Amino acid sequence: MELLKQRILTEGSVRPGGVLKVDSFLNHQIDPILMDQIAEEFCRRFRDVRIDRILTMESSGISVAYAVARQLGVPMVVARKRPSVNLDGEAHTAEVASAPGEPTGTVIVSKKYLSEGEHVLLVDDILANGFSMQALISLADAAGASVEGIGIVIEKAFQEGGHRLRNLGFRLESLTVIESMDETTGQIRFRNEN
Amino acid sequence: MELLKQRILTEGSVRPGGVLKVDSFLNHQIDPILMDQIAEEFCRRFRDVRIDRILTMESSGISVAYAVARQLGVPMVVARKRPSVNLDGEAHTAEVASAPGEPTGTVIVSKKYLSEGEHVLLVDDILANGFSMQALISLADAAGASVEGIGIVIEKAFQEGGHRLRNLGFRLESLTVIESMDETTGQIRFRNEN
Repeated sequence: MELLKQRILTEGSVRPGGVLKVDSFLNHQIDPILMDQIAEEFCRRFRDVRIDRILTMESSGISVAYAVARQLGVPMVVARKRPSVNLDGEAHTAEVASAPGEPTGTVIVSKKYLSEGEHVLLVDDILANGFSMQALISLADAAGASVEGIGIVIEKAFQEGGHRLRNLGFRLESLTVIESMDETTGQIRFRNEN
Repeated sequence: MELLKQRILTEGSVRPGGVLKVDSFLNHQIDPILMDQIAEEFCRRFRDVRIDRILTMESSGISVAYAVARQLGVPMVVARKRPSVNLDGEAHTAEVASAPGEPTGTVIVSKKYLSEGEHVLLVDDILANGFSMQALISLADAAGASVEGIGIVIEKAFQEGGHRLRNLGFRLESLTVIESMDETTGQIRFRNEN
């Protein structure tokens, strides 16, 4: 998605530890015009599959997941990182793995909002090691829902999440794929698309 | 907003401690069609004021804030509950007060996304004691931005947030105001509107 690449090159910055900062339009500040264009592109890429529900992870995936749900006219569900006073006891749960030294956590979705036989699209802003996405897949598995696809705005191909998800046979659509980033020069190199 | 009242009466449930569970359409699962109608109503109510930016709190306010930002065509900014590796050191900060026995916390907004002289609309899903909203106001104050209004989907009038914000002179527009809820019978009583 050329427009998105341009925004990343213009506004993104490379930080130590493989961190890409794109908080001017994607997760801290949200540009709703770009978000609509991102949602349109996801709808185009997944137009051949049935989608009953969008599932995302609290909290940086919410805006993009909502934008996609809005265009498809289906409900969106937010997996929560910890039990909330507002949530039923009746919930699917999954553990989120983490990088060494970081705490693991539990994510939950009420059983009322993710059911057996449903066709779900998983959506998130950034794919790095894929720990969040693995947890969303576990939640869908626990519910007996089928994952029709995974939509990612920015995939960092130098981390292993994308590779692993494709190897597991998931249909992963990343609107931009970053092959490498250079902390020293700030250079960002994208994967060539056909 | 009659449509919203009906959804609350049909799908909401009253839990101990003054908790209203509306997670089938507002915060755990999101109904994008209702969300668009909510956003339209906010736009109608605030059509006489200049709004440069929407500010909300991570994470249950994100969907409604995004929906409003999208209709107004302005950026939306999410105040984060803790410093993130993706956030600049240059941030406005505010403390969030809490109910007795609950931990307080810090919220932050990058200085790049909330600036002096800007006109902001604060948006959130539910107003109870108003601690989150007070923190958003502090962030706007720290930035030198002016709060043009506060948009709330559901105000719980039996908690003090709404009363306090109106006393402070803020223009608070709540799409529904709940006067009382009965834990035993599950009855929800709305404030009469003119």
